[in-house]
Amino acid sequence: MSLILKEINEKCLTLTLNRPEKRNALSADMYKELADELKKQQQNPAIKSVLIKGAGEHFTAGNDLAQFAKVESKAELHSTLEFMQALMQFPMPVVAQVSGMAVGIGTTMLLHCDLVYCDTSCVFSLPFINLALVPEYASSLLLPQLAGHRKASEWLLLGESFGAEQAREFGLVNDVLEPEQLAAHCQKVVSQLAAKPYTALRHTKALMKSASDSVNLHIDKEIEVFVEQLKSEAAKEAFSAFLEKRKPDPKKYC
Amino acid sequence: MSLILKEINEKCLTLTLNRPEKRNALSADMYKELADELKKQQQNPAIKSVLIKGAGEHFTAGNDLAQFAKVESKAELHSTLEFMQALMQFPMPVVAQVSGMAVGIGTTMLLHCDLVYCDTSCVFSLPFINLALVPEYASSLLLPQLAGHRKASEWLLLGESFGAEQAREFGLVNDVLEPEQLAAHCQKVVSQLAAKPYTALRHTKALMKSASDSVNLHIDKEIEVFVEQLKSEAAKEAFSAFLEKRKPDPKKYC
Amino acid sequence: MSLILKEINEKCLTLTLNRPEKRNALSADMYKELADELKKQQQNPAIKSVLIKGAGEHFTAGNDLAQFAKVESKAELHSTLEFMQALMQFPMPVVAQVSGMAVGIGTTMLLHCDLVYCDTSCVFSLPFINLALVPEYASSLLLPQLAGHRKASEWLLLGESFGAEQAREFGLVNDVLEPEQLAAHCQKVVSQLAAKPYTALRHTKALMKSASDSVNLHIDKEIEVFVEQLKSEAAKEAFSAFLEKRKPDPKKYC
Repeated sequence: MSLILKEINEKCLTLTLNRPEKRNALSADMYKELADELKKQQQNPAIKSVLIKGAGEHFTAGNDLAQFAKVESKAELHSTLEFMQALMQFPMPVVAQVSGMAVGIGTTMLLHCDLVYCDTSCVFSLPFINLALVPEYASSLLLPQLAGHRKASEWLLLGESFGAEQAREFGLVNDVLEPEQLAAHCQKVVSQLAAKPYTALRHTKALMKSASDSVNLHIDKEIEVFVEQLKSEAAKEAFSAFLEKRKPDPKKYC
Repeated sequence: MSLILKEINEKCLTLTLNRPEKRNALSADMYKELADELKKQQQNPAIKSVLIKGAGEHFTAGNDLAQFAKVESKAELHSTLEFMQALMQFPMPVVAQVSGMAVGIGTTMLLHCDLVYCDTSCVFSLPFINLALVPEYASSLLLPQLAGHRKASEWLLLGESFGAEQAREFGLVNDVLEPEQLAAHCQKVVSQLAAKPYTALRHTKALMKSASDSVNLHIDKEIEVFVEQLKSEAAKEAFSAFLEKRKPDPKKYC
Repeated sequence: MSLILKEINEKCLTLTLNRPEKRNALSADMYKELADELKKQQQNPAIKSVLIKGAGEHFTAGNDLAQFAKVESKAELHSTLEFMQALMQFPMPVVAQVSGMAVGIGTTMLLHCDLVYCDTSCVFSLPFINLALVPEYASSLLLPQLAGHRKASEWLLLGESFGAEQAREFGLVNDVLEPEQLAAHCQKVVSQLAAKPYTALRHTKALMKSASDSVNLHIDKEIEVFVEQLKSEAAKEAFSAFLEKRKPDPKKYC
């Protein structure tokens, strides 16, 4: 079965991350498939919205770390970048339906979605610092803008995870629902979008995204540092420790 | 009786939208009168603040749609633009006293006021999308900055209205008061402003408004799309449907 | 005993404002000492964080007004500027531990800290307007960005003070603690920082501070107006009145 499920319904393209046994951890192939589908549908006038969700209990555990640990250059991150760009450039509203864990890029991608609904079980985290890495895809720009520099520092410098209520309070998600109501609520939202006029929807989103130039510049800045850090001894030690389920050795890590 | 009441008291210029039988819907003449008065008083050293409010139960139902439906060009929106520019450029603090409905430009203008107080009855809405239109006067820039992209999407892409408590939580209004206390509270605020030193007040506001260049550029961008959308079949159908109190025909509208 | 206590512990440089009998009001000498120490330690690889706090009940009552009242030129504000720049440029996370009063620059400097914890007793205020002055060190840029233009107006145009809960809600502080738990909590935070990898921490902070060019430009703009206002009759009257514990004479002040 495909790791990405695609379905078009009610003028909505639903993309389901479908690797529940790995908490929907994202591999290079999955990014590629998401990117291709988003690019293929972006000018389809029959599509008024995209819905992204995870199969099973969790949204996504983020990057597949086993794969990630082997990355040596920016080129190897290409499919991730391609997906994130396709997401950011998608001209119609993107809705995210989030339950359980949203780790790393699982939280980062929400910053590039238009409407996000989560359930009370959600835990968000951006634990890059704990892997000796830096934030990516403009989260180091957009989170301070969204929640203020200090709250963003808690998440990015201390690497603290946060729950659904904080995500709502600081504007990362629109609403928090009971787990059994989340899917129905997101379906209601995509139905509402389906009933809106296509061109006005597209123009409105474009006007709201007018700061995208500075976002793209920032992403470039981050990715340079990200790859540099990925090759550092500290990151290599953090990855090894993670995969071997042990504490990192402070001599190599700190 | 004039549709705009003007009064100077306690170093405060009070402007009352006075068309309660139409929920203070704003006509081109009313915009013109507001613009003229603001421009006339902007260098008056005897004025330390402006207070804007509505007569009767509501702040304003926004643009007079019967009139609006006939607009064919940017030139016809001139008096609205003139009012909004006079509001944005007013050098002393502008206070808004908001009860009941604040629709469309009734909510948009609050983004350009310095202090906004509303009562528990307030409903804010920016239903441009439902008229196949786009946001105007930098609301598509300022609302994402204020409340985050996702909350702003709820208001601008879904066209959802919101109450006093959300307006407070996301920083559109300073405080929510009981209806019977709202007017007295606003009077207290303009009295406080009257007791502040004129030049420091003026300089402080100017320093706080330093991003106004990007706001003005954004307004130009929005207005081009706005006029284009206003002439679209979808908007014409939405306006007809609204004025005829029927649902828009999806064939023309979607 | 020195007015600034310095201590290095757990890879954290702790700076204590130590003038409790004057509520830690900051003199030119104190600014200079803070600036020198921050500059001296900024490349020290053994330091992973800075902790700033006040001795006794209060964080700081802000600028020493008796001294401030005599300032005639920008040059005389040099040590303050030097401190603020050293604070803004410090490459590792800066934590503030705030109790009691945080007045003027005592609130402003928190906007340039990365993690701020306060206790339930805190009162924040930026009463520049009441001294016929304007905001400084980018507070007139950063507060509107953080809390929205309207909330910032309440603090900067009306000069209203605010409590711990509002500071938390609008993102000036990360958390509000019971007075007896504040110090221990801040120690826990600096310990957490001590365990993070040095380079990733430094890069992450740098990426989060990428808007610093516009912040610096804004500070220049503010300081010009600030000095102009400081020499105005209104400010001189406000300072005299404050030091003589009387109301300012409206003829000179308003």
